[in-house]
Amino acid sequence: MRAVVLRQGALVLDELPEPVPAQGQTLVRTIACGICGSDLHFVHHGRRMIELSRESGSASTVDLDRDIVMGHEFVVEILEHGPDTTGLAAATTAVSMPVIFKGMPPGPENVGNVAYSNEFNGGYAERMLLSSMLLLPVPNGLPARQAALTEPLAVGVHAVAKANLAPGESTVVHGCGPVGLAVIAALKLAGVETIIAADFSPTRRALAARMGAGVVVDPAVEDVMDVWQRTDGTSTLVQFDAIGVPGILNRAMKRAPRHSRIVVVGVCMQDDMVQPIFGINKELNVQFVLAYTPEEFAATLGHLAEGRIDGSGLITDVVGLEGVADAFASLANPEQQVKVLVEP
Amino acid sequence: MRAVVLRQGALVLDELPEPVPAQGQTLVRTIACGICGSDLHFVHHGRRMIELSRESGSASTVDLDRDIVMGHEFVVEILEHGPDTTGLAAATTAVSMPVIFKGMPPGPENVGNVAYSNEFNGGYAERMLLSSMLLLPVPNGLPARQAALTEPLAVGVHAVAKANLAPGESTVVHGCGPVGLAVIAALKLAGVETIIAADFSPTRRALAARMGAGVVVDPAVEDVMDVWQRTDGTSTLVQFDAIGVPGILNRAMKRAPRHSRIVVVGVCMQDDMVQPIFGINKELNVQFVLAYTPEEFAATLGHLAEGRIDGSGLITDVVGLEGVADAFASLANPEQQVKVLVEP
Repeated sequence: MRAVVLRQGALVLDELPEPVPAQGQTLVRTIACGICGSDLHFVHHGRRMIELSRESGSASTVDLDRDIVMGHEFVVEILEHGPDTTGLAAATTAVSMPVIFKGMPPGPENVGNVAYSNEFNGGYAERMLLSSMLLLPVPNGLPARQAALTEPLAVGVHAVAKANLAPGESTVVHGCGPVGLAVIAALKLAGVETIIAADFSPTRRALAARMGAGVVVDPAVEDVMDVWQRTDGTSTLVQFDAIGVPGILNRAMKRAPRHSRIVVVGVCMQDDMVQPIFGINKELNVQFVLAYTPEEFAATLGHLAEGRIDGSGLITDVVGLEGVADAFASLANPEQQVKVLVEP
Repeated sequence: MRAVVLRQGALVLDELPEPVPAQGQTLVRTIACGICGSDLHFVHHGRRMIELSRESGSASTVDLDRDIVMGHEFVVEILEHGPDTTGLAAATTAVSMPVIFKGMPPGPENVGNVAYSNEFNGGYAERMLLSSMLLLPVPNGLPARQAALTEPLAVGVHAVAKANLAPGESTVVHGCGPVGLAVIAALKLAGVETIIAADFSPTRRALAARMGAGVVVDPAVEDVMDVWQRTDGTSTLVQFDAIGVPGILNRAMKRAPRHSRIVVVGVCMQDDMVQPIFGINKELNVQFVLAYTPEEFAATLGHLAEGRIDGSGLITDVVGLEGVADAFASLANPEQQVKVLVEP
């Protein structure tokens, strides 16, 4: 089958052996797969990412000197199940969290990544293996491309859940890329009244408003925290860092009001400088978040299928496998793109 | 009256005008006043501390080019009340949070510091002014020197309250200086079963054990997180950073287990480097804490008076005003001292 392979730092289109499902696994056809910012990071800083992951206690065994097929935001069509395995009917459209059980019985010991793995391939390939029991049928006639947004939007649903918002608390979202937009959608869904979002890109600001931000701010014109001070300034504030580059966390800490919270959902891979005294003087709470629970993933699919979240504006381009390398390049410019889907 | 004045970066013993209580204020005699690590910081990095405090939104007006009399861990004897002011009887031994209302009526608008102020003097002086309504009588015959520990121990009580510990959670305390020891005492009081504390100083480790740490670790021999792994390793962990120097927070993040919490109670004044990916990969929560509430301050006095916290081992030296400058120097060596009291 055809796949886009990360090989020695480059994305190359190649033929790979056909995957064969083991017991508990299902062979699926990739209908579409979104490109995530983490994939861009991984191409450029993969070695450092793996090193940091191991330093923080993970048992990651991925080897950058061997082929890797990324892609973890996928929607698929069921083809066939492995031996002694039952599951969704063939031709069903489905999504799954990007993890796979390597054998039976399923459990935390034999769970692996489908992307960022030398053993399994992700969604930048024509076909892939998934765990039969993790596949969720896409309900309600939700278009496949929308279903492919389940994974990135679940990140926002999780971040908002971890923020533990109380009624009346206000929010500021720094950055309106896919992560920030997912946070905004989840905040809106949670009934948060004050959602102030900032991004340099007018396209992204327009999307932020469409996803539910009541106020959108161009940081080139006015600091978002000044806007919060001017329009609210008194209720308890939760800031979401959805940018994930050095300096953002410390700036959020510097401008944070007393006893406020910061949720770090943007993934900053580099070393970062903070001034702890800002945190101490104001008794700030910093909650780092990652991914989502299985329940949140399934709930997000439901939100999309029932129209509680409309992600249709997020998809700004669709490419084939042959367009992946160029898409990675164009995603470096946040003005042009939000979410690019790959349709193998 | 005699006072130790911070003047152009030096601590000098000088004569100052006698303080005169305004309405709502009480003139007191300083019986004893502990030297806090923040005072040492302030002597050496005062300008930067004030700058950082302003940058983080405080309206601090303290001027280092004018005299400052520090000292905020005091126990006092009531002398006389200001005009139209009632309060504790003369000769009563009392403590107070180190804040003062500058006028009537009391309120957040006119609250100021008694230490770190050009307007009021702290406890490194023979007499001081305090707010009559904030003075708490020292009950139960608690020796005055013990009562002087109310303020630093309240810091630990507050940090533990902010940690929101659930039954069965385990704790690691990095650093057994006065702040770490206060945290240990408060953890013990809260009924926490697993308290593992680390410090390079054998004196401080012995005190940590006396204050309630079940396991004490010399980091020169074994990493405290390895000890936690070996002796517990499974329950939810809360780490307390009671060291407050650059690198400690990131090390705690690096070694933290998934979904664990870090309470930053040591005050790091410098810029600090963190690797956010450690926080993200493990969904860590970092709670910065400062000081205490009035209720916690009063409760801590009660804990000391009722013998629920025994701070008697913490006081390693007592000096007069003429010994303050030397005491500041000796406190730079953590092996020699824990808490030094000044008796003006």
